[in-house]
Amino acid sequence: MLTVRTIAALRARRQELWRSGHTVAFVPTMGALHEGHLALVERGRELADEVWVSIFVNPTQFAAGEDFTRYPRDEERDGRLLAERGVALLFAPDVKEIYPRPGVITLDAPPLTGGLCGAHRGGHFQGVLLVVAKLFNIVQPEVAVFGAKDYQQALLIRRLVDDLCFPVRLEIVPTVREADGLAMSSRNAYLDPQQRLAATVLHRALAAAAAQAQTGERSGAALEAAIAAVVAGEPAVTLQYAAAVDPETLQPQPNIARRVLLAAAVVVGSARLIDNILVEVQ
Amino acid sequence: MLTVRTIAALRARRQELWRSGHTVAFVPTMGALHEGHLALVERGRELADEVWVSIFVNPTQFAAGEDFTRYPRDEERDGRLLAERGVALLFAPDVKEIYPRPGVITLDAPPLTGGLCGAHRGGHFQGVLLVVAKLFNIVQPEVAVFGAKDYQQALLIRRLVDDLCFPVRLEIVPTVREADGLAMSSRNAYLDPQQRLAATVLHRALAAAAAQAQTGERSGAALEAAIAAVVAGEPAVTLQYAAAVDPETLQPQPNIARRVLLAAAVVVGSARLIDNILVEVQ
Repeated sequence: MLTVRTIAALRARRQELWRSGHTVAFVPTMGALHEGHLALVERGRELADEVWVSIFVNPTQFAAGEDFTRYPRDEERDGRLLAERGVALLFAPDVKEIYPRPGVITLDAPPLTGGLCGAHRGGHFQGVLLVVAKLFNIVQPEVAVFGAKDYQQALLIRRLVDDLCFPVRLEIVPTVREADGLAMSSRNAYLDPQQRLAATVLHRALAAAAAQAQTGERSGAALEAAIAAVVAGEPAVTLQYAAAVDPETLQPQPNIARRVLLAAAVVVGSARLIDNILVEVQ
Repeated sequence: MLTVRTIAALRARRQELWRSGHTVAFVPTMGALHEGHLALVERGRELADEVWVSIFVNPTQFAAGEDFTRYPRDEERDGRLLAERGVALLFAPDVKEIYPRPGVITLDAPPLTGGLCGAHRGGHFQGVLLVVAKLFNIVQPEVAVFGAKDYQQALLIRRLVDDLCFPVRLEIVPTVREADGLAMSSRNAYLDPQQRLAATVLHRALAAAAAQAQTGERSGAALEAAIAAVVAGEPAVTLQYAAAVDPETLQPQPNIARRVLLAAAVVVGSARLIDNILVEVQ
């Protein structure tokens, strides 16, 4: 596995691949890799000749007071995992390489960035859109692979690709879970054993609401209340939001017609965790 | 010259060029071509194997009440001019091809889009950034060529390329003028003979202020007043703004240090015309 730290070195390698006619599937990450990330790598291997992974803890997507400085970083371990899975190239730039000077261009998608996580993480999705646009232009992959756990992010990146005509195929991979249902997340590393146990309430709450939707509940407000009620049963966990929204617009659904996104964010100790379930109703 | 109207057809041709190792210089236009556009084509020929030109009157960069519907369109004449200059490909999509559905992604650069023309054309530069990002992703040119007459636009596109890491070399070509100094513009077609004569006051006013800057005037306000005074001498012409600003930040310069952008917009009959001079002071 080749590790490159500069845009120039990456582009030189990209030129070589074009000449040889090989394609690239790109998996952007912030490192602290888990089986969820590795599932993205596996999917990438099915879709292109080479998988390229970036590890970049992007400062512009952390809101003030969030965990940018303490976000887990272990490039040596991450590199080993990626090499084992056959990743061809690791792009691990420092912040100055991606943000050499203060930027002026801003990206947004006001109806989609304001709700759910966006309401609690000021500037987060604007930072995500910015860094993904940069990375797409740097890597120029044929395919880009993202995880479904970050539903709002995946939706925004789909609109970024569609609206700006990025020549990239977007692939969204289902959430990978621990045996007890907890969604894999780099931030699970913040949990002590008791918090780790309590954190399972997030998926249980969403699954309970999904079961209600599948058995006839059509009120978004009732589904949101169902999520909140289950989370409230776990005193170590604080609900940040519970949402039952249209999967395309992220707007509340008073009466669910066909599909509903059930999404929630909770705080457990010093970890903020998110999860979601997309439910098709009959 | 090949004329294509769909993104798919353009990308197919682009793939062929990559395989043959040929490079593309891209000249995005709104048609109604004049010698200024053709100078961009000529520069493109020096910088790449093929020159590709787009003609697309972009609705999102026209403010409400502006001249979108009456903007001059003559693709047959434009196509002939481009073919004569050795252009390899004309991309002439319709609006639905570029905007197949309402977009949600927005681009902006607040400190740079708000002043000068931006203060008088609500949403104009946001629309320019959007369509240029789309066109760059559609055409994927090695080089893109723009004119210096639209200084604020050129500056914004430079920041778009730098901030979003677009893999394109940007080339800015000096303004082409009529013999009497009037900058070439598609909107000059709106002028009747008397207005055409009166419109020369725009360049005269900027040139007069530039001469003052070169002979020692260091007050931005005094230079702006000088532009306004010359324009006021021509009753058929109304000044929209006169600016003496920092060429990088577009902010007012109370005391000019090294370089100053002198820029102005005027209204003559139904035409809004702009021009600028960049002055290096000693």
